[in-house]
Amino acid sequence: MSHLSRTQTTFSPPVMEARRWLDGVQFTQDRPLINVSQAAPVDPPPEALRQVIAEAALYTPEAHLYGPVLGRPDLRAEVASQWRRAYGADVSPDQVAITSGCNQAFSAAITALCSEGDEVILPTPWYFNHKMWLDMAGVGAVPLPTDAALLPDPDEAKALITDRTRAIVLVTPNNPGGVEYPADLVMAIFKLAQTHGIALIVDETYRDFDARTGAPHALFQEPNWDQTLIQLYSFSKAYRLTGHRVGAMVASTRLLAEVEKFLDTVTICPNQLGQIAALWGMQNLSQWLAGERDEILDRRAAIEDNMPKLAEAGWTLMGCGAYFAYMRHPFEGSSKDLAPKLVQEAGVLALPGTMFQPEGDPNGARQFRIAFANVNRTEVGLLFDRLAALRWPIAQA
Amino acid sequence: MSHLSRTQTTFSPPVMEARRWLDGVQFTQDRPLINVSQAAPVDPPPEALRQVIAEAALYTPEAHLYGPVLGRPDLRAEVASQWRRAYGADVSPDQVAITSGCNQAFSAAITALCSEGDEVILPTPWYFNHKMWLDMAGVGAVPLPTDAALLPDPDEAKALITDRTRAIVLVTPNNPGGVEYPADLVMAIFKLAQTHGIALIVDETYRDFDARTGAPHALFQEPNWDQTLIQLYSFSKAYRLTGHRVGAMVASTRLLAEVEKFLDTVTICPNQLGQIAALWGMQNLSQWLAGERDEILDRRAAIEDNMPKLAEAGWTLMGCGAYFAYMRHPFEGSSKDLAPKLVQEAGVLALPGTMFQPEGDPNGARQFRIAFANVNRTEVGLLFDRLAALRWPIAQA
Repeated sequence: MSHLSRTQTTFSPPVMEARRWLDGVQFTQDRPLINVSQAAPVDPPPEALRQVIAEAALYTPEAHLYGPVLGRPDLRAEVASQWRRAYGADVSPDQVAITSGCNQAFSAAITALCSEGDEVILPTPWYFNHKMWLDMAGVGAVPLPTDAALLPDPDEAKALITDRTRAIVLVTPNNPGGVEYPADLVMAIFKLAQTHGIALIVDETYRDFDARTGAPHALFQEPNWDQTLIQLYSFSKAYRLTGHRVGAMVASTRLLAEVEKFLDTVTICPNQLGQIAALWGMQNLSQWLAGERDEILDRRAAIEDNMPKLAEAGWTLMGCGAYFAYMRHPFEGSSKDLAPKLVQEAGVLALPGTMFQPEGDPNGARQFRIAFANVNRTEVGLLFDRLAALRWPIAQA
Repeated sequence: MSHLSRTQTTFSPPVMEARRWLDGVQFTQDRPLINVSQAAPVDPPPEALRQVIAEAALYTPEAHLYGPVLGRPDLRAEVASQWRRAYGADVSPDQVAITSGCNQAFSAAITALCSEGDEVILPTPWYFNHKMWLDMAGVGAVPLPTDAALLPDPDEAKALITDRTRAIVLVTPNNPGGVEYPADLVMAIFKLAQTHGIALIVDETYRDFDARTGAPHALFQEPNWDQTLIQLYSFSKAYRLTGHRVGAMVASTRLLAEVEKFLDTVTICPNQLGQIAALWGMQNLSQWLAGERDEILDRRAAIEDNMPKLAEAGWTLMGCGAYFAYMRHPFEGSSKDLAPKLVQEAGVLALPGTMFQPEGDPNGARQFRIAFANVNRTEVGLLFDRLAALRWPIAQA
């Protein structure tokens, strides 16, 4: 009888797989690669922030030593304070944990909530690392299909809850869908989770690039929010700190005591320089971040402005926001096979929908995620020209 | 029926618990706390290394961006190259993965090898984070009691192997025991693992402080070593980089492809500045590290030199090496209850043996781990004076 280890129950990292499609493909200066595969800044943080890191490396001895498992007290306090303002909420520093990136916050939350054979509900398309961790944790990922606007329906979610369900996960603004979940939808799912005594995990990695102003939801204003809500956040996108691995979790102190066991065992503590950078960013870069957001919103607008020529070629824009446009392509064959061809024939690297949908779900084959954060308005135009020019066989309706 | 999540099946981080024993206790300049609880440098890395980190923060843009999941190619190549020299071995860069600390290397290895209900054999006393991760992974930690010199017996190990056994774990030099495993013992256990088609995980976090010269074992010279051996390493102790979270795993490329799934999902990549620092340390600090090792060896000698006065008070030195002395105390009651009293009455913070032994194992109650890396020769004398002066009731033989 064959034995499968935990990692063998899941798939290989999609981003690394996609990088391998580039092997052996030549790009020219006239026709460079347009890489819309990863949701990551390609520029370093502003110089003032780099200076802060450099100074800490030189003059703050503790920056090189172990820190507390749940993160630096100053950063936890700053998150609590800014969250109180941003969400009109009651959040204390001991309800905040700092993690080695937001993926780690998710895996820690699941490990603190679930055991073998439990279930977690995820709207589809889903974020592949969420699915991968659930696989490795022995937890069933229960797909919650979304509507044409990529929004989940609370009643459909309700129908999926069993006595093994431990949590519902929402990502808003959504990866890969781009869609910003309306506050009342988020609240309805919070109430559903609360009624059933399960957790609601809300991943707000892309919060700082939400097109809406003000708090994107009112969950933190609910009495006893922390008995239901586990919010995840990342400092990577806001301050261009992807290489430093700093994220956060906001939840009850009781849950964080469980999370502490996971974090201690998996990394001991988040790295110190990244935390020092995140704190300085929070305290000094809000104006700069507003400019970054404006730029991302302009790129999003560029997607929408350029959409007519792609629509003519048979493409549909299903969702658009934060760093992502999520599209339906018009071609015969699966996005999984078309994606490497897209590299070779159009010089475009984008992840196929199959990476974001349950295995065998027919929707994945029809979809692509375009991570547009790294392509400016001009490049979006170029990208869409290349996609519109593809003369591949069109699928029969 | 009560539901236990994965984290609820294990205990809280011992180091954090021990820190809480300090709460409310006053220490004076005349009688400061002697903290021998944690195996961690308390000083930052040498200035030249701090300068390297600062310069990378300022002038290496990629130091702020995502890197490959398995680590920077230059660091992987350097580890392979130095390992070839140090172990007379055949190790290639693609047999090396960089992790966010050595704890993460262990959790990744277990997740790549094991599934629910599998078993892993660990000599006792064991390293508590290993036990914690096995608990959280749903893997049975099978204790392998050691002899009076804290060494495991291959025949006893063999008797514990079942069809659920996936690995044997050795930590050498040992945490918490301090003992350096003889090369032939390590080889015997390698052969045992090989014969049974299970993995041998060898955690060499404290390798750089081994009192022996030359390679501590010949495992890497075995043909097909990578079909059995998974070696773990940490850059934290050698270069004082605990706050940067950088470790390594040396194993087969096939295993590393599984490990990559775990690392991608839990942290995406190791942080870049820590990797840059580790690389520079490897390439430039061997002379400095030799001095560090001399100092640690002198502290170890100080433990042995001061032992007679403690022996007179009824203490036994069970193991001594790397950063640790592992001792048997002479008192009534459990080390678990004596440890907080030790803080209050002797101004000494040390971890009780109960943290390193299976629950209910009577040995833990009689033992303490003394992490002596941070106390110099004078302080070792002071520490032993304080321990020898305790007038607690002596246990009946």
